[in-house]
Amino acid sequence: MADNYYTPPIITLTTDFGEGSRYVAAMKGVILTINPAARIVDLTHAIPPQDIRAGASALEETAPYFPSETIHVAVVDPGVGSRRRIVYTRIGAQQFIAPDNGLLSRLAARDKPSKIVGVEERRFWLPQVSSTFHGRDIMAPVAARLSLGLSPDELGPPLERLTELAWPEVQKVANHIDGEVIEVDSFGNLITNITRDMLRGVPTDESVTVSCDEHETQGIFNTYSDQPAMTFVALVGSGDRLELAIVDENAAAMLGVKAGAPVRISW
Amino acid sequence: MADNYYTPPIITLTTDFGEGSRYVAAMKGVILTINPAARIVDLTHAIPPQDIRAGASALEETAPYFPSETIHVAVVDPGVGSRRRIVYTRIGAQQFIAPDNGLLSRLAARDKPSKIVGVEERRFWLPQVSSTFHGRDIMAPVAARLSLGLSPDELGPPLERLTELAWPEVQKVANHIDGEVIEVDSFGNLITNITRDMLRGVPTDESVTVSCDEHETQGIFNTYSDQPAMTFVALVGSGDRLELAIVDENAAAMLGVKAGAPVRISW
Amino acid sequence: MADNYYTPPIITLTTDFGEGSRYVAAMKGVILTINPAARIVDLTHAIPPQDIRAGASALEETAPYFPSETIHVAVVDPGVGSRRRIVYTRIGAQQFIAPDNGLLSRLAARDKPSKIVGVEERRFWLPQVSSTFHGRDIMAPVAARLSLGLSPDELGPPLERLTELAWPEVQKVANHIDGEVIEVDSFGNLITNITRDMLRGVPTDESVTVSCDEHETQGIFNTYSDQPAMTFVALVGSGDRLELAIVDENAAAMLGVKAGAPVRISW
Repeated sequence: MADNYYTPPIITLTTDFGEGSRYVAAMKGVILTINPAARIVDLTHAIPPQDIRAGASALEETAPYFPSETIHVAVVDPGVGSRRRIVYTRIGAQQFIAPDNGLLSRLAARDKPSKIVGVEERRFWLPQVSSTFHGRDIMAPVAARLSLGLSPDELGPPLERLTELAWPEVQKVANHIDGEVIEVDSFGNLITNITRDMLRGVPTDESVTVSCDEHETQGIFNTYSDQPAMTFVALVGSGDRLELAIVDENAAAMLGVKAGAPVRISW
Repeated sequence: MADNYYTPPIITLTTDFGEGSRYVAAMKGVILTINPAARIVDLTHAIPPQDIRAGASALEETAPYFPSETIHVAVVDPGVGSRRRIVYTRIGAQQFIAPDNGLLSRLAARDKPSKIVGVEERRFWLPQVSSTFHGRDIMAPVAARLSLGLSPDELGPPLERLTELAWPEVQKVANHIDGEVIEVDSFGNLITNITRDMLRGVPTDESVTVSCDEHETQGIFNTYSDQPAMTFVALVGSGDRLELAIVDENAAAMLGVKAGAPVRISW
Repeated sequence: MADNYYTPPIITLTTDFGEGSRYVAAMKGVILTINPAARIVDLTHAIPPQDIRAGASALEETAPYFPSETIHVAVVDPGVGSRRRIVYTRIGAQQFIAPDNGLLSRLAARDKPSKIVGVEERRFWLPQVSSTFHGRDIMAPVAARLSLGLSPDELGPPLERLTELAWPEVQKVANHIDGEVIEVDSFGNLITNITRDMLRGVPTDESVTVSCDEHETQGIFNTYSDQPAMTFVALVGSGDRLELAIVDENAAAMLGVKAGAPVRISW
């Protein structure tokens, strides 16, 4: 029976509208009016307002866990109403609709897009388009039509490339790596821009020191429970990034550290 | 294949329980126990506690984006356990179940209800009805049964009218309009009760002054990106209401303005 | 047609990740990749970080409202990466997957589990298992496979019992009951560990005094609307527990009361 069961592609929504925003519900209503069988999943609505970098990071880490052909709609859009483009992009087996402001650039840096199309054909949009809410008036209806089988080539002209986003670089030299905290998660853990790949060849024992602002710790661990409660630890987290945490506590609050704080690994 | 795909009507939930409330999950569990194929969408759970006016406004702006026959359940219910009625109401092509406390009055003022029924037949409710949670014990099971095809006429006696809600009036005279801030959105934008319709004939150029508390600005714009960052602007937002915003910032926090603040447009 | 409509079992998610966490979305993506027809409902993600007791309480009150065969996945997991077990448990007609840290002990105290299985067979997990996110890498894929019909007996060895959780006891003596506040809900109501059952034989009229910290009130009511606004009242709430509330206000904020505060009923 499962064989005959029709499952339309999933549509995910990522916005900076805040949890509980009825603007999110309006987008869902538009999608379901066009495709009543659409299956919608919230990726997150907790992106800090207009923080394109945080949006790009959330998409980079989370989108790959979704099924092939998922349509990810991302609305972090400080330029809404200006001449910034809206783009359809195919990266790997996933599809994206977003303003072309760098929101997709982290994903595109991992895996070159196989298709980029400008979203320009107004017949796929709502009849009335506001100046301030293209998520509802353009991106939601376009996603719904794609979920019904519309070819992305119909949406507008092919494009060569996406807008890139400046991203804090990690410096790796002989015996140290310099990066920074890029995000504080809901547990207060400090997530850095230093990935597992960048740590190849770096020792993980007591000979390595990890510092952030004036705080430091020795060793890089695999999990929180390797150390007693209240210990300041460095570990490689579930997103394959170096994290700094205080076991069973909120490191950001206790240490007063925010996104942007410098992180150094030395050995 | 899509033709044969059965899509039950959507049920939306609007409450003041707060995002993440397990009271919302209990309502969903009740609905899914009665109709396992029910499709439930959160409209919002971020209505300030017992703020009927905010609930009425959220429903007015968001419900129209949903498909025909959607069943909207709204629980902002300070009178739960008292003699206030629960009503089924059909407005346009949409259906609503809510306490009869004014929550539906904004929608009903736009478009006269074609049916109002008192929700009184206990056989459609949960067997045990608590005194404090009619959303779970009465409204959720009734919505689920309607989604299975129950006729609303079975729910109870027909009623003549809904309870109305006092609403701050907008005064429009020769050369000014007086309204107020009715809501602060998740970006800190100040949403007023002055609609696009009321602005007909009002100039939008520099000759018009919009003030809120002691803050003022000239002109009414179409979008945030028409002005540089940090500018205090007036514009007509995506809900067809006059909004006051600070470009790329949180106006409510920066100006200390709350719902209820007076707004004047003069020219 | 509804008869032929295939509705896969519902999967609920309960975590301490916070509303809007993209870690929740990653779990949903994993589930939908394995079972594209999965139906996922958020039970709550607002459990305070690592508060197993609050998680156990949320599950106890909310899970019973879901349909038979629902698969509840609960991730409040301070011991992730340590040797704590993950368990599949069947309680009544409901199924649970959780770390064996007491999260299921409230439900199990109500109704003895009919099956407990250790989740040990790695072939049902993601190929790569992180040390810090077993919700995504183990529990989500196992839930998805169960929703496709996998027998829980395949997951690992049968177990005798679940880990129990210390729980604040209620003392009932001749003329008083001593309990405590176990949770503050989103309205600021103070939910206690004193259940409706424990109140059998206790008077509800003015002869009974309910106190919490230095605040006290007479009588136990059925609903908020029995008393005027701003009154401090005791009532039996929708979860069949004694609650303390201030009518139309936030009692926790106004009185400065938190979880753990002592509550005494005397008569």
